[in-house]
Amino acid sequence: MSFPIDLRSDTVTQPSTAMRQFMAQAEVGDAVIDIDPTTERLERLTADMLGKEAAIFMPSGSMTNQIAIRLHCQPGDEFLCEENCHVYNYEQAAFAQLSGVVARTLPGVHGVLSPEQFEGTIRPINDHLVRTRLVCLENTHNRGSGKVQPFDTVQQITSWAHENGLKTHLDGARLFNAAAATDISVAQWSQLFDTVSVCFSKGLGAPVGSALAGPAEFIQQAKRARKLFGGGMRQSGIIAAGALYALQNNVSRLVEDHQMAAKLAEGIRQTEGLMLDVDPVETNIVIFALDEQLGTAAQLQKALEERGVRTLAVAPQKIRMVTHLDISMAQVNGAIEVIKQTVPALTA
Amino acid sequence: MSFPIDLRSDTVTQPSTAMRQFMAQAEVGDAVIDIDPTTERLERLTADMLGKEAAIFMPSGSMTNQIAIRLHCQPGDEFLCEENCHVYNYEQAAFAQLSGVVARTLPGVHGVLSPEQFEGTIRPINDHLVRTRLVCLENTHNRGSGKVQPFDTVQQITSWAHENGLKTHLDGARLFNAAAATDISVAQWSQLFDTVSVCFSKGLGAPVGSALAGPAEFIQQAKRARKLFGGGMRQSGIIAAGALYALQNNVSRLVEDHQMAAKLAEGIRQTEGLMLDVDPVETNIVIFALDEQLGTAAQLQKALEERGVRTLAVAPQKIRMVTHLDISMAQVNGAIEVIKQTVPALTA
Amino acid sequence: MSFPIDLRSDTVTQPSTAMRQFMAQAEVGDAVIDIDPTTERLERLTADMLGKEAAIFMPSGSMTNQIAIRLHCQPGDEFLCEENCHVYNYEQAAFAQLSGVVARTLPGVHGVLSPEQFEGTIRPINDHLVRTRLVCLENTHNRGSGKVQPFDTVQQITSWAHENGLKTHLDGARLFNAAAATDISVAQWSQLFDTVSVCFSKGLGAPVGSALAGPAEFIQQAKRARKLFGGGMRQSGIIAAGALYALQNNVSRLVEDHQMAAKLAEGIRQTEGLMLDVDPVETNIVIFALDEQLGTAAQLQKALEERGVRTLAVAPQKIRMVTHLDISMAQVNGAIEVIKQTVPALTA
Amino acid sequence: MSFPIDLRSDTVTQPSTAMRQFMAQAEVGDAVIDIDPTTERLERLTADMLGKEAAIFMPSGSMTNQIAIRLHCQPGDEFLCEENCHVYNYEQAAFAQLSGVVARTLPGVHGVLSPEQFEGTIRPINDHLVRTRLVCLENTHNRGSGKVQPFDTVQQITSWAHENGLKTHLDGARLFNAAAATDISVAQWSQLFDTVSVCFSKGLGAPVGSALAGPAEFIQQAKRARKLFGGGMRQSGIIAAGALYALQNNVSRLVEDHQMAAKLAEGIRQTEGLMLDVDPVETNIVIFALDEQLGTAAQLQKALEERGVRTLAVAPQKIRMVTHLDISMAQVNGAIEVIKQTVPALTA
Repeated sequence: MSFPIDLRSDTVTQPSTAMRQFMAQAEVGDAVIDIDPTTERLERLTADMLGKEAAIFMPSGSMTNQIAIRLHCQPGDEFLCEENCHVYNYEQAAFAQLSGVVARTLPGVHGVLSPEQFEGTIRPINDHLVRTRLVCLENTHNRGSGKVQPFDTVQQITSWAHENGLKTHLDGARLFNAAAATDISVAQWSQLFDTVSVCFSKGLGAPVGSALAGPAEFIQQAKRARKLFGGGMRQSGIIAAGALYALQNNVSRLVEDHQMAAKLAEGIRQTEGLMLDVDPVETNIVIFALDEQLGTAAQLQKALEERGVRTLAVAPQKIRMVTHLDISMAQVNGAIEVIKQTVPALTA
Repeated sequence: MSFPIDLRSDTVTQPSTAMRQFMAQAEVGDAVIDIDPTTERLERLTADMLGKEAAIFMPSGSMTNQIAIRLHCQPGDEFLCEENCHVYNYEQAAFAQLSGVVARTLPGVHGVLSPEQFEGTIRPINDHLVRTRLVCLENTHNRGSGKVQPFDTVQQITSWAHENGLKTHLDGARLFNAAAATDISVAQWSQLFDTVSVCFSKGLGAPVGSALAGPAEFIQQAKRARKLFGGGMRQSGIIAAGALYALQNNVSRLVEDHQMAAKLAEGIRQTEGLMLDVDPVETNIVIFALDEQLGTAAQLQKALEERGVRTLAVAPQKIRMVTHLDISMAQVNGAIEVIKQTVPALTA
Repeated sequence: MSFPIDLRSDTVTQPSTAMRQFMAQAEVGDAVIDIDPTTERLERLTADMLGKEAAIFMPSGSMTNQIAIRLHCQPGDEFLCEENCHVYNYEQAAFAQLSGVVARTLPGVHGVLSPEQFEGTIRPINDHLVRTRLVCLENTHNRGSGKVQPFDTVQQITSWAHENGLKTHLDGARLFNAAAATDISVAQWSQLFDTVSVCFSKGLGAPVGSALAGPAEFIQQAKRARKLFGGGMRQSGIIAAGALYALQNNVSRLVEDHQMAAKLAEGIRQTEGLMLDVDPVETNIVIFALDEQLGTAAQLQKALEERGVRTLAVAPQKIRMVTHLDISMAQVNGAIEVIKQTVPALTA
Repeated sequence: MSFPIDLRSDTVTQPSTAMRQFMAQAEVGDAVIDIDPTTERLERLTADMLGKEAAIFMPSGSMTNQIAIRLHCQPGDEFLCEENCHVYNYEQAAFAQLSGVVARTLPGVHGVLSPEQFEGTIRPINDHLVRTRLVCLENTHNRGSGKVQPFDTVQQITSWAHENGLKTHLDGARLFNAAAATDISVAQWSQLFDTVSVCFSKGLGAPVGSALAGPAEFIQQAKRARKLFGGGMRQSGIIAAGALYALQNNVSRLVEDHQMAAKLAEGIRQTEGLMLDVDPVETNIVIFALDEQLGTAAQLQKALEERGVRTLAVAPQKIRMVTHLDISMAQVNGAIEVIKQTVPALTA
């Protein structure tokens, strides 16, 4: 077992030798002036897996989400989302800064909203009011400890949205985790939404990139918006190859990450003074609270770091750990040991 | 007693003969190129009454509020506000549309937030996050049935804000009502905030206009922003005179509006199937719910209208009535009679 | 003859006693919640005079122009205009600041563009490029010494625009002057354009306000945009009445302003060291250059001001004078005398 | 000699085997959460070469330029640039769309402006006017046939800018070409400007990426803006390695591209009906006009394409050819042969 054990995020993975090899041999072209064949292959495969007409590769998940919102909405339009979701909280509110769009947040339970909460949220047509235009959900929900949205609930919400003329976007940065944790394929999840974004540089282990999938015409507009945001890349096939490799090789193993997270959760449950935010843990994210009497999350993070276990303080009393393909079950066990030793020693 | 009795809003008042006379004789100049003396007098008086260095006249309260937010914040900054407040809900989210600013809403009780709700709302410095910059309160609170914010609570909130480096803005569209309902002067309310906007065309009865007050340098910037928004007017003294007349003549009589609203509330309380939103009514706004079995707010509004009482359905089951200087106590009694007769007949 | 003689702008006019009387008696209503009858009458008359389906009253010409551009264009669209025009230079580039629209300027001769200059200006469809969407002209042209655009030229430009799928907007702040200077009615000018803005507070002498005219659906959208910009006013009938009075009483007398400007021009022509920018002067604006050896425009402006003649330095060596309804031919003669005495004395 | 000969752009280059190898072995980390060592190395080397405190890697040159403008300017600020430059014409006017900034264009001669043209361009402080804030130049100038800006001229312009409180940005997408064509190093060029962007995926032959260099604090802000625009990439070291390899290996050979372009220009000069836009050709871009009697640029482009020579029609009668590291002198000679045969045959 090797230290450090980096549980800060599933974004920290290193491309494997095989993936690097695959990237090095990628067939490329100038994607701005023309076509990059590997990028095109990735976009085709992504669209097919998600059951969408088309997909487009971009340098980040923030870009895919914020471009989706920009295209679904016009300045002065409003989208509905859960108050702890990524697009509202962790993307510098580009929707407002760059696109003049306004968010209306609803409070969820671990990121999950109920269909009832949407009742009465569509604003009437009135010159004082913005126009309600879009529902944006996140699955799995990062701040909700990687919780999988209940499929029926999502179905009810998106049906309600479409019946009322709203568009729907899924921030599926970890949609492959949701599929791995259920019997529901990414295509089944995706069919509920007009557009879906997925990320290749989280659990799938690619170094860079996300994709936005949806109707062909929408994706055509997204290409224009990508240029506007500065996301047009020339021989993008090199990095698209990493994503392609990830899609072809790293999807089925996500269940292992979930098993490791469950193991970590078990360790937390057994440690006095720690309390899981969501129990049971459903996918690869474990968030737990630390009893105030033992210290702060920042203190615990530091103490764990010193012993080779890297975690992330995400609130004054909360720590996040994420499993991924560069973590082994042995390391998980090692991390649990360290935690069990460290926590009681905090107050010493 | 004359019909119709227009209780839709305190914005429907007609300028009186005396006010019209005053406006017709106003000394004017070109306020864009130079100075309009009556506008200047109004701005000076407003600033003095609010205890601020300077004030600036604008065509609407939306403009004063949205320019205040624009100047306190930069694109990608966030302001904190109550979820039912006017600046977030009824001004087309100009803060996002025109200024790239994002709102974070907190749920209040009849528009009132507690200081505790602000804890932990200031986002850390981080490239993923917007910067928390401003607290925006509304007093009295329109959607909260004209409720007056508790002075101590406001003081705690604004102190917390200033201690944490945030700016504060008060949407005081009905601040004169708050003062009339308490022993607290508009200057005392205003001193808690960096900037304050007040409206002359609500209870004060002027035909057009609002003012934004604050530090002289801020108001200088607001003048530039007013030009940008298209609010620069030439011989604005004509309408500024109406506001000046209102400030000099219509402030002390606001207590009468409150007495009439209390009377209306008493009538609602006595009518089966109606339920006051906030009880007791504190200022000039009465909002009540209609029992679903009796019909919808839209139906009741229509039935009342047919009998000469104009009200506003503000939610599927809610009606708003507002008293003002064109309403007499006799009309209030008349309106109560009509309501008492109409409500039972709704289901007939 | 009375001093000072204020030739700085035609915006400095004072409402006459009759106009004030008319305003004081205006029938009004709450234009935001409902209808203001006088404002409606003004909007109807304006639309009829301009031969457009509808018109909307706003507090300023900047607001009418910038809302027109905002509605014709989307973020990332481009409009074509003359490089010295008002909408590009003197409205704080609200089109970019508030609406994300980009301007492409073409160099005119005294504000007049030739149809040939538009050849090749429509950008092809390409993800690198903005979309060319609108042509915006100004008539009469302020910085072009109030020059009237040649009707045939305008007709060719707007025909070319419409044939190529572009929209057209006329900044007609002084369109009534263009009509007064030609045999061409404001309706004939207006029919060449999709939308037209006119100003009541320039030569027409109303204290406040402009109107935007165009298709009914466009004007409906403009009402929404006016709310967004903060231009929604309650009992706007008071000031609309001033504009209504102006339309009914002050249009035909504009020729007198032109005669007075011609007289002023004659005086400039006879003064050594001064040189008319545009000769002959066509409407009510006279711009002249001052020989550098005699001093700067700022110096001359100051010297004239001291002798009771107010002008505007609009460039290091250029002075602007504008005639209007508060100026008499006697004052014009007086101003000429002062100029003739002042200029030679500058170097003394 | 192999066909096709792709002269459309210097962005079409394929990463060499050695470059691919270097990329495959790059040391990487999570650049969003932490540090990517290869990206850091690239940024350090770039900053050092340009003589700037810091540099930041981004996915495209559009992003580096548009973020530079966004950070130098605030909404309602204006930058001065040459009318055919890239930032104004080919980046979807992101400065206006995303940042509310306005451009003021000056007409250059093959992209070169004279210092005199800047006189009087700084707008006075006035509420009607935008604030002049930034001068933006491009070197070499793409639409100016890759012309190198005269160093003295640039120095005069940037000195004037700095003396007048303006900031300066250099779009140095092909700055390495400018240095290769003169005795002036990229550092010498860069020292004239506050910020400089350079591109790795043009003549330098890297697959993806650009960098923005400037003061450390500015680059810190640029990191935040990069996140906003969606340009934050995780293990960006893979592609940064390509850029690093390019900087270390492909700079000195740019003179070969210039020799090949000179050769191409010679071929154009010898072909009847073709006319060089700029003669002599100074770097790696050759733009020529086609006599209208021979046909259009689109027709010639198509005819050349059919014979294996790929070029770009950049105007109705103009063709652009660009040399780069995937082109050999033998191919250049081959291309000339094809051109000489094709042009006379066009009318046949």
